Parts: sequence; structure tokens; C-alpha cells
Amino acid sequence: MNQDLQSLLQKFRSELREIGHYEEATRLMEWDLRTGAPKKGHELRAEALGTLSAKIFAMLTSENMGRYLNELTSAEAELSQVDRALLRVVRETYERSKKIPPERHQAYVMLVAKSQSVWEEAKKQANFSLLKPYLEKIIAFKREFIQYWGIQNHPYDTLLNLYEPGLTVAKIDPIFKQLREATVDLVQRIGEKGFPKFPVSLRREAPIHQQRHFSEKLLERIGYDFQAGRLDETAHPFEESLNHYDVRVTTKFVLDDVLNAMYSTLHEGGHALYEQHVSAELIGTPLCHGASMGIHESQSRFWENMLGRSRSFLQAIYGDFQAAFPGLFADVHLETLYQAANHVEPSLIRIEADELTYNLHIMIRYEIERALFEETCEVGDLPRLWNEKVRDYLGLETPNDALGVLQDVHWSGGDFGYFPTYSLGNLYAAQFRETLYKEIPDIEEQWSEGDFSQVLEWFSTRVHSHGKVLLPSELIEQATGKPLSADYLIRYLQQKMSDIYQV
Amino acid sequence: MNQDLQSLLQKFRSELREIGHYEEATRLMEWDLRTGAPKKGHELRAEALGTLSAKIFAMLTSENMGRYLNELTSAEAELSQVDRALLRVVRETYERSKKIPPERHQAYVMLVAKSQSVWEEAKKQANFSLLKPYLEKIIAFKREFIQYWGIQNHPYDTLLNLYEPGLTVAKIDPIFKQLREATVDLVQRIGEKGFPKFPVSLRREAPIHQQRHFSEKLLERIGYDFQAGRLDETAHPFEESLNHYDVRVTTKFVLDDVLNAMYSTLHEGGHALYEQHVSAELIGTPLCHGASMGIHESQSRFWENMLGRSRSFLQAIYGDFQAAFPGLFADVHLETLYQAANHVEPSLIRIEADELTYNLHIMIRYEIERALFEETCEVGDLPRLWNEKVRDYLGLETPNDALGVLQDVHWSGGDFGYFPTYSLGNLYAAQFRETLYKEIPDIEEQWSEGDFSQVLEWFSTRVHSHGKVLLPSELIEQATGKPLSADYLIRYLQQKMSDIYQV
Repeated sequence: MNQDLQSLLQKFRSELREIGHYEEATRLMEWDLRTGAPKKGHELRAEALGTLSAKIFAMLTSENMGRYLNELTSAEAELSQVDRALLRVVRETYERSKKIPPERHQAYVMLVAKSQSVWEEAKKQANFSLLKPYLEKIIAFKREFIQYWGIQNHPYDTLLNLYEPGLTVAKIDPIFKQLREATVDLVQRIGEKGFPKFPVSLRREAPIHQQRHFSEKLLERIGYDFQAGRLDETAHPFEESLNHYDVRVTTKFVLDDVLNAMYSTLHEGGHALYEQHVSAELIGTPLCHGASMGIHESQSRFWENMLGRSRSFLQAIYGDFQAAFPGLFADVHLETLYQAANHVEPSLIRIEADELTYNLHIMIRYEIERALFEETCEVGDLPRLWNEKVRDYLGLETPNDALGVLQDVHWSGGDFGYFPTYSLGNLYAAQFRETLYKEIPDIEEQWSEGDFSQVLEWFSTRVHSHGKVLLPSELIEQATGKPLSADYLIRYLQQKMSDIYQV
Repeated sequence: MNQDLQSLLQKFRSELREIGHYEEATRLMEWDLRTGAPKKGHELRAEALGTLSAKIFAMLTSENMGRYLNELTSAEAELSQVDRALLRVVRETYERSKKIPPERHQAYVMLVAKSQSVWEEAKKQANFSLLKPYLEKIIAFKREFIQYWGIQNHPYDTLLNLYEPGLTVAKIDPIFKQLREATVDLVQRIGEKGFPKFPVSLRREAPIHQQRHFSEKLLERIGYDFQAGRLDETAHPFEESLNHYDVRVTTKFVLDDVLNAMYSTLHEGGHALYEQHVSAELIGTPLCHGASMGIHESQSRFWENMLGRSRSFLQAIYGDFQAAFPGLFADVHLETLYQAANHVEPSLIRIEADELTYNLHIMIRYEIERALFEETCEVGDLPRLWNEKVRDYLGLETPNDALGVLQDVHWSGGDFGYFPTYSLGNLYAAQFRETLYKEIPDIEEQWSEGDFSQVLEWFSTRVHSHGKVLLPSELIEQATGKPLSADYLIRYLQQKMSDIYQV
């Protein structure tokens, strides 16, 4: 590599490192807003956040940045794998931002801000017609943006790519169809035997400080590094990486539902383990985070569901569970805990859904989004379409739109193409899991003895350490030897349902 | 005002508002570092803070800013009082920064960063000679900076002005001397009768969560707005204003010393009340904070000491105190609480000193700093000078430098001129207090009934609302009708000591 190129790379990287510093500030501001920043200060905070976000946007789309990207692109063959990935990731953001006329972007941002508060009201009133005109405008904007960004095969691909690089309708359509059919079949078979009741013994009220200690214990158990993170309380749990050594988890405590915080902690803990184990060599670059939304979700879902709801994990932490809530659950045996953790029952609300039916909620959203951008349906059709699909896949009637099409904030926030990554996470996770189980046949025995070091090491090596250097498709193939397939998740779900519900 | 001037002002104010946004981010980053940010993330956080601080510095000293300041200065006569104050405050920062050659500033910043960690080690080893060469270099820098900034009468004035606009050796010298002599006299007279013992009944261990609730209760009592702030735990308590509606208090809980958190909360609460009651018209400008370090300290000292340690306040919160720690202090009568809160005894450590002897600790530091910048002493003399003054003023022997000249971080951080503002706070507070008591003769009766609304309103009107619009000297004269004098504080201390110790 010649000196000019080296000095160019250095300037490029130093600019990115600085952008990262502003991002650390905005992430902290957001974390703070969601973990107890005083209410009256929110408005001024939003203003400050606006200034810092504009600064980050300006740096990412500056003339300087354009020049770096051009020059590096023409020397791409000489770059290392990491620098090529860096170039790819930064160029994507740059081009995506540059292609939208600033005044259209501004108008969109204002529309979306307004639209989210309209959504809150519409949901409260269970009145879709309030939100309808806003959704129509948002979708018109999205269709316009798709034109700016360009279409390869399917207009919806362009949106999918915002969240999952390389994902297309052509790839995901058959996979989701296969998953949907197998899941509907399983749900029906369980339903025919009658959906079980959730054990009432787990509905007892557990003091919040005990739940907090239990969550901390769980995070310690799975190897979360508290010297490089912290646990806080929030309304809608999330994980936030402020810097490589400051990866925070949040959770929510529900007085009469200890499993809620337990699994929300394990879920966000899974995201956090990912971020804590990205290679330290990527510090200071945008590569120092998870590969994609889908791969990230594979980690949260794995630790929450595949590990966290396994008999062996519950066996390992059963003593902690009893100790955390002295006497409260003395009559709750391990098997009851296992049944409760794996309780299956179709329900209307996605975020309350169990591991099996969850994907059906995603299929409903995916199919509607695809149709919207194929322009085979319009916003006015949404409530009817929604309710039909809920009937077909979950066997339920939707009493009103608050419990139906209005339940999620995503669409009013303009996040089309996002939902599929949730099920993608489950698919990736199951595929990782099968490989892991093959390579380390006694992995569950390790868990039942409370040893989670080898599973963490396996994920660190195969997934975490790479950060964003590999594309999701490269990552899954490199880690499992196969491209993404629905087979693994379906096999996993069938086995589990057969074990628990004898179907 | 002509259109050009109006548009200039608008641009100037918009630039300041943006700087304020970056400051909100850096303040949050610092608050977070001191309230539980994970240890391993500190180094990368410091780097991010460095980037944001450099950005703020660049904006404050930009060519644009220079142009705004020049043009506004030439139109100063046409400006409103607020805009003139704004110009004064921003010009001061601008000129102060511009006068130091950047490479000297950089060298100084690096020296000070290193020096603070050397101080930690020196204090641990009680070995002044470790710190000595660093202090010598810092003082050489400070003397050099004083030359750049310019000297009016006394070189130390230039440093005093960094923390207290308008303060000079000529003004403060006689006031401090008078205060020192009166205090030494009071301490000796109490000592002759024998310093009392601190009541052991207040040394019982009180659970932290009970202490936390009690602190929250106290803040509510004095009128702190929790919708525009929050209370957190830290090692060295501080108040932090992120924005006008987000003014945070921190405190420290000591298991067997409930008065520690109680008074640290009231102290920081006093700072917070100030910031919460600055006029909302000053939002978005650097005027939207306290007038000076000294005036700020007058508020913390007033609420902590003059109100917080008064018999009437303790009477009002005595029920809360008993309720906060069920049964624990059942045998502690109001009078015992009052005696404990006003316990006087000379001690070696400033931050543990009582209300009376505290000022003597400041006098020691003030006199040494003044001598250093008059160049009538050198760094090598400090331990000896220190110990002599401790003997003369406090009647104590200093067993080692960790308990003497090495106890505070300030000097190793380059903060010369800062210490005097602590006693200045007490002086201002007593002067405000006497005026308040004259204007509202039944103010203590109100307190004993738990009504603190009128005292808060009085301070809001006279002090808080003005922000930085008035200079400290204008503020004290406008609020009390008199320039700063030692008489008020001496009278207050004499009365109190006479009441408690019959001296």
C-alpha cells in the first residue's frame, strides 16, 4: 500500500472515529431519555439531540467524506478485508443520504414525528381512520424514496436492505412461507388437544428489588461483563452500546410476572453479549457493532429462547430462582417453570406472543408490507387484511384495531422492512444452534451444570468477533456451512412442541 | 434597533444555543461517568468527551464568533441589559481562550491530566515530594497565563476572576482577615469550655434505601421539582444542570452517618433550586445558570447550613426523620438532632469540617495561594506553611501531608483561585439571610411549620431568576442594599455559637 493511500485511510478512519464520539453522545442522550431523564427536560433534550444528529449527518455526507469514498473506491483492490467492509458500510450510508433531496427528507422527518403521536391517539381510540391519512403519506414518501435509492428486482427489497443488507423478497418469500405453514400446522395440532393454562403459581407478586437482583444474577450467569455495562429499568427494554466497553442492558419489571423481566433481561443480554464480544480491533469504526438487525436478533432470541427456555438452563438457574424470591415460589417445581417458560397460546399482541406463534405475527406484517410496496393493496385495506390473516394463521378474531393493525409503532414511524428481521433472527438462531449442537454434542449438559462459557465462546468466534466485517449471508454460511434455510427453525420448534405438547 | 443588528443578534444567539446543545451532551457524559458508567468504558468515554469539548472550544473561539463579538461590542449601547450581559460573558470566554497560545494550552492540559493521577499516588503515600515538581510546573504555567490574560492590580486577581467575576485581593483580603480572626476567637472560646462529643446515637447504621427515601423527601420539602430533575448516588456529590428543566442532584450514603447524606442532599439541593429558578427567558444562553461560583455556593450553603441546621427546619422535618428510619432513632430527641447537626470541633480535613471551622480551612488555602502568586513563597514551602497555619487557626498538629497539604485535588488540577468561593458563599449567604429575616420576620416560624415556599420565592426573585445577567457584586447590592461584608456571617456564627455553646 502506498503512502498516499495509507494517509488517506488514516484521515478516513480518524473522521469516522470522531463521528463515533458524537454517536456515543447521542446514544447516551437516548439511553438517558429512556431510563429516567426528567419529563420536563425532554423537549430541550430533543432539541440538543437534533443538533448533534445534524452534526453527525453533516459529517457522514460531507464533501470530504465524498472525496475519501471516491478515492478509496478506486483503490479498493489494495484494501484489507476490514477496510473494504468499512468502505462498504460508510458508502452505503453516504449514498443513501445523498440520494434523497434534503427538503424531501426534512418533510418526511416532520411527517413521521407528527405521525407517531397521531398513532398513539389512534391506538387509544382504536380508530384506524385517524392514522390512515398519515400512513398514506408515509407510504407515498417511502415509494418516492425507493425510486431515489433504486430498485433491483422488487421495490420492497430496497426497504429490506435498510435493515438487513442483501435481503430480498426472492430469498425470504419461500423461507417465510415454509415457516408459516409449518407453524400454523403446529399451532393447530396443539389447539386440537386444547391450549394449556399458564400456571397460576407464577403469577405471584415478587418485590422489584428481588427481581432486579435476579436479573443481575442471570446476566452474570451468561457471562455479561458488568465492568463494561450496567442494568437499568425502562418501559420498553432495549440494549444500548455507548462504546465498546460500555454496553448497557435495560429491562422491565412486572410485579406479578417474574418471567417477564427474566426473559426480557436474557433477550437484551443476548444483544449485549454480541456487542461485548466484537473484536476490539474494530473500535472506533462503524464496524464495531452487530452485522445486521437479523443477526443481532439471532443472539437475543438464542439467549432468551433457545438457551433461556431450555430445560438444562432452567435446571442450572433453578436454585438462583428459588434463592432470589425466598419462599415465594417454593411449590413451583422445575417442570412447572419449564412449562410456564414454554407456554404456547395464540394471542393478538405480538410483543406478548410465545416463541412458536411469534413468527406468525411477523408473517402477517411481512405479507402486508410486501403487498403495499407491490402496490397490490392500499392503506385502506389494512384493517381487513390484518384481521383476515389473524383469523387464518392464529385462529383468532380481532375485536378492534388497537388489538390489531394499530398495535405496533413501527409503521407510523416509517419503519417498513424492519419486522422481517425479528423472524430472521429466529431463523438464524436455529441454524446456529443446530451447528453448535453438532460441534459440541454435550453443550446442554454443560448448561445444566451452569457452564455457559463454551456456548459464549462459540458465538464469539463464529459471530460476535466479526462485527460488521462480514455480510449476514457470509456470516451464516461461514458459521454453519449453509445458506439461510427454514429447516432448522422448523425442526427445532417441532422437537420442542413434541416434547412439551406431544404433537 | 436596526435590522442588521437584530439579525446579527439572532445569529449570535443561535450559535450560542447550538453550543449549549453540545454542552448538554458533555454534561450528561460527565454526570454519567460519576453516577455509574461502567469502569472499562471510561477511557473511550474520555476520548469522546475530548472530541465534544474541542468542538465547543472551536465554536466559542471561531472567526465567526470573533466577528459577532466585535460587531456587537461596537453596538453595545443599543443592546438590552440581557444582551449586554450575554456579550460580556461570551467575550470573556472568547478573550481568555484566544490569549493563550494553543500549544501552551495543550501542554498545560496534558500536564494537569498527568498531575492529578500523580496527586492520587502522592496522597496515598503521604509524600509531597512526588507532587512537588508537578505543582511547580502548574504554577509556572499559571504565572505565564496570568501574563497573557493581563494583570490589573494583583496577579492573583486574574485567577480569582476566573471563578468570581470582579473579585480582587483588595476586596477580599480585609473581609477574610476579619472573618478569620472572629472565627479563631470563637473556636478558642468553645475549645476552652471543651469541644463536645458527637452524639453516638446518630452513629447507628441506617439502610441505604431508607436514606435514599429520606433524601428524596427532603428535596420535595424544600421545593425541588422532581419532574425537572432526579437524585442519584455518587462518590463526591455534585449538582449538574443538563438543561433548564433537567437539573440533577447527587448524594452519597454513609451507612452509619445519616446526617452525611442529609446535608449533602440539602447542599446540592440548594444548588439545584438556584438552577431550577433561573428565568426561563434565558434558556438557550450561557446566562441561564448561576451568577458565579460564590453566589452559587451561597445557595448550597444557605439551604444546607443556615436553613438546614436551624432548629425550626429540624423541627419541621423531625417527623419525616423518625418515619424514614422506623424505630432506629426513636430515642434521638429534636434537641440531640440539633446538637449533632451543629457539632463544632476543629479537624484536619476540609470536606469533613463543621460550619464554623470550615472557613478556617479556606483561609489557609487562600493565604497560601495569594503568597504563591505574589511570589513570596514557593512550592517547597507549602507543607511547612500549611502545618503552621493549621496550628495557628485550628490548634491542631498535622501528622502527615495526606491529612494536610495533599488532601484536596484542586491544586493538582490547576484550580487556583477556586477555594475562596467556598467562604464567599458563606459570606453572601449570611448577608442574604439577614435581609431575608428583616423583610420576613416570621420566616423561621414558617419553616418550623414546614413551609419553605416564601424563602424559596424570596431567593428566586432576588437571586435565582437573574441567572448570570447581574454580576455578583450587583446581585448582592441589589438584593441586600449593601456591598459584601464579613459582618453578617460573623454575627450569624456568633449568635449560633452563643445559642449552642454559650460562648
